[in-house]
Amino acid sequence: MLIVLHPDVTPQAQAAIEGRVRELGFTPHAISGAGRTAIGITGNKGPIDPGHFRELPGVADCIPVTAPYKLVSREVKHDDTVVDVSGVPIGGPEVVVMAGPCAVENEQQILTAARGVAASGASLLRGGAFKPRTSPYDFQGLKQKGLDLLSKARSETGLKIVTEVKDTETLPAVVESADLLQIGARNMQNFSLLEAVGDVRKPVLLKRGMSSTIKELLMAAEYIVARGNYQVMLCERGIRTYETMTRNTLDINAVPVLKALTHLPVLVDPSHGIGLRKHVAAIARAGVAAGADGLIIEVHGDPEHALTDGAQSITPQQFRDMMKAIKRIAAAVDREV
Amino acid sequence: MLIVLHPDVTPQAQAAIEGRVRELGFTPHAISGAGRTAIGITGNKGPIDPGHFRELPGVADCIPVTAPYKLVSREVKHDDTVVDVSGVPIGGPEVVVMAGPCAVENEQQILTAARGVAASGASLLRGGAFKPRTSPYDFQGLKQKGLDLLSKARSETGLKIVTEVKDTETLPAVVESADLLQIGARNMQNFSLLEAVGDVRKPVLLKRGMSSTIKELLMAAEYIVARGNYQVMLCERGIRTYETMTRNTLDINAVPVLKALTHLPVLVDPSHGIGLRKHVAAIARAGVAAGADGLIIEVHGDPEHALTDGAQSITPQQFRDMMKAIKRIAAAVDREV
Amino acid sequence: MLIVLHPDVTPQAQAAIEGRVRELGFTPHAISGAGRTAIGITGNKGPIDPGHFRELPGVADCIPVTAPYKLVSREVKHDDTVVDVSGVPIGGPEVVVMAGPCAVENEQQILTAARGVAASGASLLRGGAFKPRTSPYDFQGLKQKGLDLLSKARSETGLKIVTEVKDTETLPAVVESADLLQIGARNMQNFSLLEAVGDVRKPVLLKRGMSSTIKELLMAAEYIVARGNYQVMLCERGIRTYETMTRNTLDINAVPVLKALTHLPVLVDPSHGIGLRKHVAAIARAGVAAGADGLIIEVHGDPEHALTDGAQSITPQQFRDMMKAIKRIAAAVDREV
Amino acid sequence: MLIVLHPDVTPQAQAAIEGRVRELGFTPHAISGAGRTAIGITGNKGPIDPGHFRELPGVADCIPVTAPYKLVSREVKHDDTVVDVSGVPIGGPEVVVMAGPCAVENEQQILTAARGVAASGASLLRGGAFKPRTSPYDFQGLKQKGLDLLSKARSETGLKIVTEVKDTETLPAVVESADLLQIGARNMQNFSLLEAVGDVRKPVLLKRGMSSTIKELLMAAEYIVARGNYQVMLCERGIRTYETMTRNTLDINAVPVLKALTHLPVLVDPSHGIGLRKHVAAIARAGVAAGADGLIIEVHGDPEHALTDGAQSITPQQFRDMMKAIKRIAAAVDREV
Repeated sequence: MLIVLHPDVTPQAQAAIEGRVRELGFTPHAISGAGRTAIGITGNKGPIDPGHFRELPGVADCIPVTAPYKLVSREVKHDDTVVDVSGVPIGGPEVVVMAGPCAVENEQQILTAARGVAASGASLLRGGAFKPRTSPYDFQGLKQKGLDLLSKARSETGLKIVTEVKDTETLPAVVESADLLQIGARNMQNFSLLEAVGDVRKPVLLKRGMSSTIKELLMAAEYIVARGNYQVMLCERGIRTYETMTRNTLDINAVPVLKALTHLPVLVDPSHGIGLRKHVAAIARAGVAAGADGLIIEVHGDPEHALTDGAQSITPQQFRDMMKAIKRIAAAVDREV
Repeated sequence: MLIVLHPDVTPQAQAAIEGRVRELGFTPHAISGAGRTAIGITGNKGPIDPGHFRELPGVADCIPVTAPYKLVSREVKHDDTVVDVSGVPIGGPEVVVMAGPCAVENEQQILTAARGVAASGASLLRGGAFKPRTSPYDFQGLKQKGLDLLSKARSETGLKIVTEVKDTETLPAVVESADLLQIGARNMQNFSLLEAVGDVRKPVLLKRGMSSTIKELLMAAEYIVARGNYQVMLCERGIRTYETMTRNTLDINAVPVLKALTHLPVLVDPSHGIGLRKHVAAIARAGVAAGADGLIIEVHGDPEHALTDGAQSITPQQFRDMMKAIKRIAAAVDREV
Repeated sequence: MLIVLHPDVTPQAQAAIEGRVRELGFTPHAISGAGRTAIGITGNKGPIDPGHFRELPGVADCIPVTAPYKLVSREVKHDDTVVDVSGVPIGGPEVVVMAGPCAVENEQQILTAARGVAASGASLLRGGAFKPRTSPYDFQGLKQKGLDLLSKARSETGLKIVTEVKDTETLPAVVESADLLQIGARNMQNFSLLEAVGDVRKPVLLKRGMSSTIKELLMAAEYIVARGNYQVMLCERGIRTYETMTRNTLDINAVPVLKALTHLPVLVDPSHGIGLRKHVAAIARAGVAAGADGLIIEVHGDPEHALTDGAQSITPQQFRDMMKAIKRIAAAVDREV
Repeated sequence: MLIVLHPDVTPQAQAAIEGRVRELGFTPHAISGAGRTAIGITGNKGPIDPGHFRELPGVADCIPVTAPYKLVSREVKHDDTVVDVSGVPIGGPEVVVMAGPCAVENEQQILTAARGVAASGASLLRGGAFKPRTSPYDFQGLKQKGLDLLSKARSETGLKIVTEVKDTETLPAVVESADLLQIGARNMQNFSLLEAVGDVRKPVLLKRGMSSTIKELLMAAEYIVARGNYQVMLCERGIRTYETMTRNTLDINAVPVLKALTHLPVLVDPSHGIGLRKHVAAIARAGVAAGADGLIIEVHGDPEHALTDGAQSITPQQFRDMMKAIKRIAAAVDREV
């Protein structure tokens, strides 16, 4: 349920309402929108009697929330959430671009990539330090050393850092280093990890699972938000289908559908979405045209020799060209990059 | 195999080369590009000895074609094919929009839709007269009467007509009335029908099957082109996946992948691709941004009461807004609508 | 709607009821079960007022049919349909096995295969004469000559013949030669072809489309039955999924689900279902264990040199072993082969 | 690589060979088969020079392993692995049945189910104590109390316990209580969890991910085995497809394909595989007929009121009937239940 507050509610009245929610054994979530403040309630099994709240001072209305995802739904919060990633707003008018290699490989590689993408207008640097890999015998990332190199790249370029959190054991180290915590596709329904990132206060980029439905993606985001971490953004990165000519099938439909259902920012990952270097730019353009709030792109100085995902990594030069194209598309949908 | 001709080959020499191909029991296909003319060969099982042709006057080179789709591949014809639909070029710089109801229902309905979409800049009117339906008990179209109403709408608005060919029995009637023959998703591998439309000389819009691969789509086009009808365009209309929130999953990846593999024009059908009226425009924008040569959109004056596909049909007003948005996107990729 | 007749209804009364149905513009379908006769009605849009029939002599009850597939549903006919294929009953206690090569290639090949499968207990010989092929350049079957060779094999072995109908043009030739008409996966929603085989009076084996739902398969069968050809059986042959290690994913779930929803016989095609020779027998066993009424198996005397589908064709020797295994499984579910 | 040892190799010679492997920085895995002992090597990037080992005493042969999954492949170990679950052998001639409720709900519920399934011949009791759920607001299991109730049911019935491990945090508690650790579908690529269960010495039941390929399932098993826990079995539980009439699509093909590629036992979960109570028995029969080494079945005393998965849980009575049917199928493939 959603308790909508009067515009002129006092802090005391709001605190009293939240206290009442807690008394009943539930959890209140204050949700501020442009026009109104509301209190979302979670922790209930089944509907709550609005009679508990309707007469309390400051309560304007009590609205049942029909979506199974509550706090992330547009029903509960109409206005777009703008996530602040160390000063970079995501979900506002600007289309934000995150770029960098799949994995941090060494200092020269990450610094070259960082400088390249910064020069072309990226705001965040991506790069995996802890890599989940299908085979136990494949390169699993530089781990802490990878995080250190990302920090170094941040110091030098000013780019903010997004990197994957692989498990709860290494979460503290990633929280220490990163500006934005990425939950990868394989972990989208690793609920213990979702709860753990829900308990920290760092923004989270949640990627859609390889064969997750849009609803499951929203439910996974709800796991994080229900723990009090409201700084979440979603990322469409391609789903698994029968088509073998591309690595995944980027579900472009997910962009407008998610934007309609949730107030959270929605990003697109064209690199994993198509998996073919020469077509990444076309899918990036499509993502922005469909309404994405940002892009995450794999860029590598020498894709042919990348340790991971070389086939879908573009060069800094290709990235520069892509950024020019993206700026034009963004302008055509009244946004900027 | 592809026989590349000298730029200054004489008609006699070319005829002699084609005659030699026929003597060997194969079929020659003359293919004219901007810079060169070539002769594609089909009908062979396995490789052909280039020695048969290399010494003939006018032959510049003999090139093996590695793709299983031959005549539709970029290997055989590098330049884009521009299909002429009764004067409307498709596959050139302009992004062409086809719009209209799923099915022709009655005179008023089709004329209203036609006027509406013509006023907003559509070039072709779509509307089904012979409707393949999942249930034998559902409305199967107005048949010949539907074709007549489409012709009437053409006379009044100047729009060209695209309508579906359901079977070989009704093909002659559709050829008589339509400017562009649509092969629907369910018939993409109806090879007898593909051969039949390959034998007529009307342009064909071939929709991707519900779970066809990109390669199968190209092979289906090859069926048509191998019979001598080179006026073919392809249409991505969404594939079947596990996602249930949308009707299909529009495979945006298919757009750049197809454009790279084939010289044929590539269209996008956002209406079937997402199946939700309010999101059609977003997917249309994405399609154009990804490089589509055209769009086919379901528009109905009263979608709530449409006999078929109402949930995905937009109103003429929504279509007008969509066209404005599309024009901006087209401009951003150096094209026009 | 279903009109259930009194057990002792007179032929005159039944004829009067059927006449009333026709007067209303609908089509009556007499359906005989073990315990009762009923008249199914098709051709109506929306519900029919039972008042039209309830008072007529011989009418016991009027029951609305809720399934969208009417005549093929268990609602309309509770007892299993047993299709008679030139004397071979399919859908009764016996599990029927059809076997033979993918395509008829030459006399020796088809006769060898026919003798082999007959000796091991097959009842029908399969073999394609008209082959739908993904590529226009692949072997498309021996056509009429293939039908003639099948007839010859029938004369020699006594096996009944099942072969594919590719289009309406060649339907008469196939009807002339075959005992059982196969509609292939790619034609499952070729509605004009379904209607055409609905108009003949030969049994039909309808294969599930490559990505058709169970419901769509039932609707396709309804197309045939609604035209008055009640001799239809369904065949699960694998669906298209993301798994690439097997050719298709045999949907074993479809067997019990179909058996519950329809009275028509249900077959399994393990050869296409898994596409790997060495595993065909395991899937055949699974199909019978799950309740299939029959199997259709690709057998080739020399699979390594088969013109089509060699990788999934088993040898006559492997077929003999498979038949032994199948007999044991059939016995374990109280059936026989 | 695989180092095959002489049949009469001395323990000292074997230790020396293993020592040489470690000296090179790799990990040796002793693999005992019926006819031979071999040493698998992991930890290498790229091929190893057999010259390192070929001349050592006791070495019969050095064989490259081509499969990307090494230790779990039939190449490395030809004979079936029989996993010992507290005295119950899995992977041998007997088909083992595990049964019980989706989740432990309370003492009476779990004891009733345990008694019921024990009486009908189950060897293991299943029941979730830590439940991964799509929604954060759904019942997440009784946790430690659930484990305690499972232990109690074991004491009373003698059934061994299989229950899910949800994360590394609660792994020690589950290891303490369970006889067999289940990794659920959503965690199949939770590599940190796979490594953690690879470090304990309890048998593991690894379920296939919702849209994992067969190869990915084998790679996930390799993660566990590479850490030295060789007691692993695999479970096919249905994959995600476009079909909506069933919960998942049980991939029956996976059973023979897995049995051919790996020496690990292969189980089938018909409950999740079809998701419809009345059809669970048919799919269980199919699984055994296809060659499964065991079944895991959801049984609930009152499925209509189950807190989770009620629609696919069968009653103890239905389970008893299913067991009778399974025994007959097992006998037909020369096995017993």
